[in-house]
Amino acid sequence: METHKKLTIGLFGFGVVGEGLYKVLQQTPSLNASIKKVCIKHPGKQRNAPETLFTTVKEEILNDAEINVVVEVIDDADAAFEIVSIALRGGKAVVSASKKMIAEHLPEILQLQQETGLPFLCEAAACASIPVIRNLEEYYDNDLLHSIKAIVNGSTNFILTKMFEDKLDFQSALLLAKQLGFAESNPKLDVEGYDAVNKWSILLNHAYGIVEHPDNILFTGIQNIQLSDALVAKEKGLDIKLIGQAKKLKNGKVAAFVLPQFVKNGDPLSFVKNEYNGVVIESGFADKQFFYGKGAGSFPTASAVLSDISALRYNYRYEYKKRYHHTPHELTNEYFVKVYLSFDDWKYIPREKFEWIEEWHADADRKYLIGVLPVQELIQNSWWKENQTSLILTVDPIIDNLDIIHLKKRSLELAGIQ
Amino acid sequence: METHKKLTIGLFGFGVVGEGLYKVLQQTPSLNASIKKVCIKHPGKQRNAPETLFTTVKEEILNDAEINVVVEVIDDADAAFEIVSIALRGGKAVVSASKKMIAEHLPEILQLQQETGLPFLCEAAACASIPVIRNLEEYYDNDLLHSIKAIVNGSTNFILTKMFEDKLDFQSALLLAKQLGFAESNPKLDVEGYDAVNKWSILLNHAYGIVEHPDNILFTGIQNIQLSDALVAKEKGLDIKLIGQAKKLKNGKVAAFVLPQFVKNGDPLSFVKNEYNGVVIESGFADKQFFYGKGAGSFPTASAVLSDISALRYNYRYEYKKRYHHTPHELTNEYFVKVYLSFDDWKYIPREKFEWIEEWHADADRKYLIGVLPVQELIQNSWWKENQTSLILTVDPIIDNLDIIHLKKRSLELAGIQ
Repeated sequence: METHKKLTIGLFGFGVVGEGLYKVLQQTPSLNASIKKVCIKHPGKQRNAPETLFTTVKEEILNDAEINVVVEVIDDADAAFEIVSIALRGGKAVVSASKKMIAEHLPEILQLQQETGLPFLCEAAACASIPVIRNLEEYYDNDLLHSIKAIVNGSTNFILTKMFEDKLDFQSALLLAKQLGFAESNPKLDVEGYDAVNKWSILLNHAYGIVEHPDNILFTGIQNIQLSDALVAKEKGLDIKLIGQAKKLKNGKVAAFVLPQFVKNGDPLSFVKNEYNGVVIESGFADKQFFYGKGAGSFPTASAVLSDISALRYNYRYEYKKRYHHTPHELTNEYFVKVYLSFDDWKYIPREKFEWIEEWHADADRKYLIGVLPVQELIQNSWWKENQTSLILTVDPIIDNLDIIHLKKRSLELAGIQ
Repeated sequence: METHKKLTIGLFGFGVVGEGLYKVLQQTPSLNASIKKVCIKHPGKQRNAPETLFTTVKEEILNDAEINVVVEVIDDADAAFEIVSIALRGGKAVVSASKKMIAEHLPEILQLQQETGLPFLCEAAACASIPVIRNLEEYYDNDLLHSIKAIVNGSTNFILTKMFEDKLDFQSALLLAKQLGFAESNPKLDVEGYDAVNKWSILLNHAYGIVEHPDNILFTGIQNIQLSDALVAKEKGLDIKLIGQAKKLKNGKVAAFVLPQFVKNGDPLSFVKNEYNGVVIESGFADKQFFYGKGAGSFPTASAVLSDISALRYNYRYEYKKRYHHTPHELTNEYFVKVYLSFDDWKYIPREKFEWIEEWHADADRKYLIGVLPVQELIQNSWWKENQTSLILTVDPIIDNLDIIHLKKRSLELAGIQ
């Protein structure tokens, strides 16, 4: 309406997402937002937009007083951070989709927002078309969020789906993902969990006010998951998903990680197949909510950027209530997890590190166990992701410190050991 | 932050939702919103709040200049509309959860917002804890929304789930729903679809800019669905759900209704069980999105009210872009639907009204057919919901006028009739 700002946008990046946004904006004239200039790296390429729109000189955007919004969708995290910093200091609102940049520079980005009072919106950086950040900001207050559990990486979810549904082994499923454009030519960032943990670092802030560098969050990817793991899971009516999880423990601190996990049929996340993402939020008031949608791709990502641009018209900005209006939560590694491990040889497994082992089993090629480990062990050592050892969390894997003695006793009794 | 308004709330109604909101607000001090006065009807009741908070005189809220937000969660649609009107004209923002009132007074409520420029938010009026209205307002622009399909009534979904999972007949399932508090003592409003069509009328506005009285929208409930229908569905790997649907046809007009419908296993809505609600949105950019959560109950509804209150701090208001910034869509009844009917006697079924009948079948007590009807027939006549006749839409039921001749020919060929 009349009270809304006219938005004049300077766009950095014209790759898949940037071009998607350009097209989407052309089809939504009611937004009253237009792209004045696009800054690109390689001027030679053929592009589906008028040549006068493009520049290679970033100052043409950053020094243009008419431009009041900088949208940044480039690949280079360092360059992106520089752009964001200059834009905010120069009085421009910022919309960003660069999860790696945001995850690695969270403290500085928060500081910049506090100093300038300007909005920095990044809905596209986590789960693209799923409005998870806005929901965490608007729907949940500090004390009320029990847990958040999500599939935040489409490539790995696609690969796992193909392993399950078509019984492909990991390498064949990965190849298919590449052919269909669901994995990068260098898929390490997706497959080994780097992309997912970056997103998780961003969501931990909006969910719990925790600002933690992704290096300090426990994570791995799906690189060691075997077709035999998938078959074991299927037999038990379970799925395997790469899941980011954060849960408030009894002492009020938060357990958080990105790890492969078994999921029961009927769990909302078991419904999330192929390249889709999904988020389950459990809270005191809204109870259980589940959001499902495309987590990547040109238009789904552009639509998230668009929703941020749309919000700028009424000066929306994140309040980071969990960080500034409450005592922010602390991340803890003082808890235990129940894990399934499959491995080639017992010599790779330090059995003495387990609190207890409930089940073990050996096939011709592959051995399995289910046991309980302190999370500190997973953080300090890496045997559990070496030598093709595959670690998958069980359903409801988190064991609170306060429960461990009681559970251990009961478990050993059940096994007839004590 | 400092720029945000302090909200001083006058609350109308202290039933399940009102009391829920009171408790929720006490637990979210960071919101900087407080309830100054609560207007109730029956002063005698014991309530879990200080007595000085309550009044029976509505002017104590409506004439109090310090109160800048009226939250209205009462049952009486006429009284609610009066309160909303006076509040808006008196310069107060309004949050409402009264779906019947909103559905029946949509034109006046839109008019009041235009005249006063004040926000009227009603996220709690459709699907409670699912932020569907905000998403329709923020994520989707006119041309881009292909369809919206949703389970918006928890009571009927609970009853259908029990018929499917526990093979209860309709009456036993309804009794169980009442015992568990998922259905009102007079369940007609839920069971016969009145509640669902009110919500659908509200969502049609936010989705497509269509303002239509619920009386003019094709609907029924689940009152005629037989256990035998559930068994037929189960055999075919289908579920039955009461679904609100709206879909853009090839001519740009919108087909919309609330009717029982078969749903394939694997469809997101098949995942929605018991008292939950779910919404599937398909659009050009975000692609397919699915939202799932509790659609009723004290705290889920209060949490939706809370999110509206929270949005008022930054002066958020609906823009109704589809209505004001575009040519709003038109509702049409010029299309066909493929239906399944089960009935006791052929004499109840006007066979000549069908475009064609593809299948028919008779058991000892019950007869079945699958055929295609013009929607006008369902609007003009009511034989399809009388005499225990049960109508259920097939999967993908909508047949565009432009396709009917071609489809009829192919269907009759397949049946060997032509």
